[in-house]
Order: sequence, then C-alpha cells, then structure tokens
Amino acid sequence: MAGSRVAVIGLGSMGLGMARSLKRAGMDVVGADVSAERRAAFAADGGQVAESAAAAAAGAEVAVCVVITGDQTEAVLFGPGGVAGALPRDAIFISCATMPPRQAEALGRRAAEAGLRFLDAPISGGARNAEIGALTIMASGARATWEAAQPVLSAMGQRLFWLGEEPGQGSAMKAVNQLLAGVNLSTACEAITFAIRLGLDPKTVHEIISGSAGNSWMWGDRISALVAGDYTPRSAVDIFTKDLGIVVDTARANNFPVPMAGAALQNFLMAAAAGLGREADFSVARVYARLAGLELPKPAND
Amino acid sequence: MAGSRVAVIGLGSMGLGMARSLKRAGMDVVGADVSAERRAAFAADGGQVAESAAAAAAGAEVAVCVVITGDQTEAVLFGPGGVAGALPRDAIFISCATMPPRQAEALGRRAAEAGLRFLDAPISGGARNAEIGALTIMASGARATWEAAQPVLSAMGQRLFWLGEEPGQGSAMKAVNQLLAGVNLSTACEAITFAIRLGLDPKTVHEIISGSAGNSWMWGDRISALVAGDYTPRSAVDIFTKDLGIVVDTARANNFPVPMAGAALQNFLMAAAAGLGREADFSVARVYARLAGLELPKPAND
Repeated sequence: MAGSRVAVIGLGSMGLGMARSLKRAGMDVVGADVSAERRAAFAADGGQVAESAAAAAAGAEVAVCVVITGDQTEAVLFGPGGVAGALPRDAIFISCATMPPRQAEALGRRAAEAGLRFLDAPISGGARNAEIGALTIMASGARATWEAAQPVLSAMGQRLFWLGEEPGQGSAMKAVNQLLAGVNLSTACEAITFAIRLGLDPKTVHEIISGSAGNSWMWGDRISALVAGDYTPRSAVDIFTKDLGIVVDTARANNFPVPMAGAALQNFLMAAAAGLGREADFSVARVYARLAGLELPKPAND
Repeated sequence: MAGSRVAVIGLGSMGLGMARSLKRAGMDVVGADVSAERRAAFAADGGQVAESAAAAAAGAEVAVCVVITGDQTEAVLFGPGGVAGALPRDAIFISCATMPPRQAEALGRRAAEAGLRFLDAPISGGARNAEIGALTIMASGARATWEAAQPVLSAMGQRLFWLGEEPGQGSAMKAVNQLLAGVNLSTACEAITFAIRLGLDPKTVHEIISGSAGNSWMWGDRISALVAGDYTPRSAVDIFTKDLGIVVDTARANNFPVPMAGAALQNFLMAAAAGLGREADFSVARVYARLAGLELPKPAND
C-alpha cells in the first residue's frame, strides 16, 4: 500500500504530524484544511495540499479525518462538498476525532450506506507522537477493513488496538481514556496547589510524587511544565470541557454514574468560565491559585 | 550507629518489615505491639520483642512509631505506660503514622517539652518496600535530628526527603500524596467499571490505558489485580476513608477547596457503608458494579 493515495482532512496539531508520518512512509498524501495557514504548513514540507476536503478525497483509497468533534466529522463526510460524494466506492474512512460512541455508530452506518468502509479510530499520544508516527490508535469497525488499513495505521501509530466489529467501541475506549486523563489532571492541579497552600515547595513535591503512589502520566507530563513555569499549551482547557462532556453524556445515556468525571468537568468549566479555555489544560491550577491567592511558579500567576 | 538500640512500636504490615530491615542493617532492634500474634511474627525471625512499648523504649536511642493514626501515636507517647516516660533524654522519636499536619505539629511540641527529639516522618511504598528497606520517607523536624537519624532512616527507606525544620511539613506532604493516590484510585475504579458498562473487555482496557495518558501508579497496581480477579487487600478501603478524611479536614482548616478529594472520599465511604471497609481499597469498583449490575473479573462480584 506504500504509494497509495491517502487524504488527510484536518492539518491541526495532530493531523499535520500524521500527514507527515504518512508521507515519510512513502504514501501519496494530499492534505486539506479549512485554514490556508495550516495547508501552507504542510506544503512547506513538500506536501501536496488541496483547496477542499472533497478535492483531497477524489481518487484516494483512504481518507484520514483528524478534526476536533463528531459534528465536524459529519460535516466532512456529508456536509456540502462532503467527501462521501468524492471518495471512490469502498474507500476507507478513518475517523480520529473524539466523539460520543453513539455518534460514531451512527456515522459508521451512514458511511456504509454511502458505500464506504468506516473505522472508528480515535487517537492518543499528543502532537509529538503524531509527528514521529508513534500514536496509540484504538479502533473498531469490520476486521477486514482494519486489516486493509494496516499500512496507513502503522505509519501513524505504534500501539494499534482493534476493539470489535462495530463502530462505537473505539470511541468508547477513547472516552474511558479521557475520563482517566481528565480526572487525573484535574486532581494533579488540586494537589499541587494544595501543597503550595500548605507551605511545601512545588519542585520538591513534584519530585517526591513522581516516585510515589500518587503518580500519574498527567502528573509527570503537565505538572513538570507547571513547576517549570512553562504554560505553553500542549492541549487546551476547552479540549477537556469537550471530552469530559462526552464522558458524562455517554455515562448518563447508559444510566451509569461517574461522580469523579463529573467533578473534574466542573473544574475545567471553572477554568473556561475564568477565560482560560484556550490556555494550557493545567490552567485548572490557576483557578485554585486565584481563589486562594497563591503564587504559582513563574511566569507569575496571572 | 549500627548496633544502636532501636525500638519499633507497631509490628503491622509496615512496622514488621521496617523492624526486619533495621535488624538486617545490624541494629539492636526491640519490637512491641499490642497484639501477641504480631510480636510472635517478629520473634519468629529471631527478633527481640517486649511486652509493652515502654519496655521496648527503655534505653533505646531511637523509637520508630508505626501505628495507624495520630491518636494512637499520641497514646504511644503520652498515654498510660507511654514511651515519653521510658525513652532516655534526647532520644529520637520517629513518627510514621499518617495524621493531620496540625496534630504532628502539636505532638512535636509536646515531645520537645518532654526532652525528646521528634521527626514527623510519614512513609509510603507499601509492605513490600517496608520489607526490603525501600520506603519513601517524607520527614520534617530539626535538621540535626534528621542527620542524627540517617542510619535508621536509610535502613528503612530508599528515597529520603527532608521538608523543613518544623514537624507538620512531613504530614502535609503525606496528605498531598494521599490526595493523589486516593482520587486516582477512585477514578481508576470508576473508569474500569464504565468501560465494562460500555461493553469493552477489561483486560484490553487495562493494557491500552497502561500505555496512554490515562495511566497512573494506582491504575497499574490496583487495576492489574482487579482484572486478574485478585482481591487480596494490599491496603483497605478504611485506610482511604481515614486518609482522605485527613485531606479534606486539613484543606477545610486551611480554607482551601478540594472538590476532587471530596468526591473520592464519598466513593470510599460508599464502599465502607456497603460493608467493604476491610476489603481491598479497589473495592470501590464493586460499588459501581453492584449499582449497575455488572460482573467484575472473577472471583465473581459479590
């Protein structure tokens, strides 16, 4: 499948790295994005870009859709100028956005009716792993489609998981990951500010916890940045208001209580309400710090 | 200081391993416990035991107190037959129980008035690390006392942290660790049962999360046991109702909000209310499973 034509729809922080990884693997990649700036970023690497998603999809064997939401994915497929009308029959559509499992199921059904093969394939690992083709991909959809897509998936990801025949299971798995990531992050923000309130030195606390039972992936990644005073967004607060929103909606639709996720969602909403929605997701710590009048590691708490 | 006389008060799952580690380091260890069975466990290894804490403390240069609560520590020191009356002047009292920082401060003051040198030195790492002398010890108290106690501390621990001159800072650090450990564990229980509710295979979910942004120390340790159906308690639900109780009380005393810790405490209280207080701490997952009628990995959900 090297040399195959692959369309990448969405050249954001994840999609751009994925398009580059596919190109590096020898595929014939055409990128599309609503933003001319993002298209230019891929073109600057020698990547082919198209003016529209449909133009990128025309003649492609595989389309990889790396937008933010399920509604955006629906628009890419079935909106005006949607790729469902441009992709050849039996082309594979790989849907990577985080969305409610029921929406992934519904999109899978509609895609099948339109003659496409659909993979519900959310991703995890961040922009750095997208760039080096080392994402985690948690997918569901027909086993034969999963197998046919292997060259494309393995060019983008290192840990590839197939979760079942039906679209929806991939998104369910992603929701479970986001539940854990979001709550552990919200908790890390609570703990580091509580520590400062108690008079402890944040760098020492970070070091001790990193080797103790309180450690988590989010603590290691985000609180390292916080204690260094580096507020460059790896991911924004708004991503977690969206993803934990999907978690609590999905749980409610399944009559399942998720009090931990519910509490974490409120913390991210407090950060968003405080005007920090587009700031680094660990800005939840700034909310605690503002309320309690604490100083976070420099650059000073704003 | 090898060859020094050290009293270990409390020979439970942590204290017994710590007494053994001290003995292995060549110290003259005398153990005490209210339970004849626990005394016999140390004696079976050739350990010296005393009938009372005061008898163990008589003539000791260092006393290591490994009971469960601050109130028990107070009773060991100042209750009837307390060790404050038995230890030589300037003996070092190493307090390892998890307790509110203010209680550690108060005990430190009283111990100083009684002519003792006091270290507020909570421990982390579990029974296995106690056994091999590889605990994390987070201590505060006079720097000279910390230095004098090094041979004893390094026989028991591998990661030794001094947090300041005043008792209370060690306990504050332990509270921060227990906040993270307790919330991350409660969240791990919520996530694995949510995954089962959504039709995902718990072993696959465990594997995917272990390499993803949702990972945590608690997920790795406790959910490994859960998916293997191994409900042997490493630590009990009641430990977290106690420790998260300390966290929320300490936060309230400092006018600091801890909504994540508050939500987790309620989950552990639900498990305790359901009769699972002495069961493995990840029995919080059994509460979610009971409510939603889910089957956990065998042995079957009771």
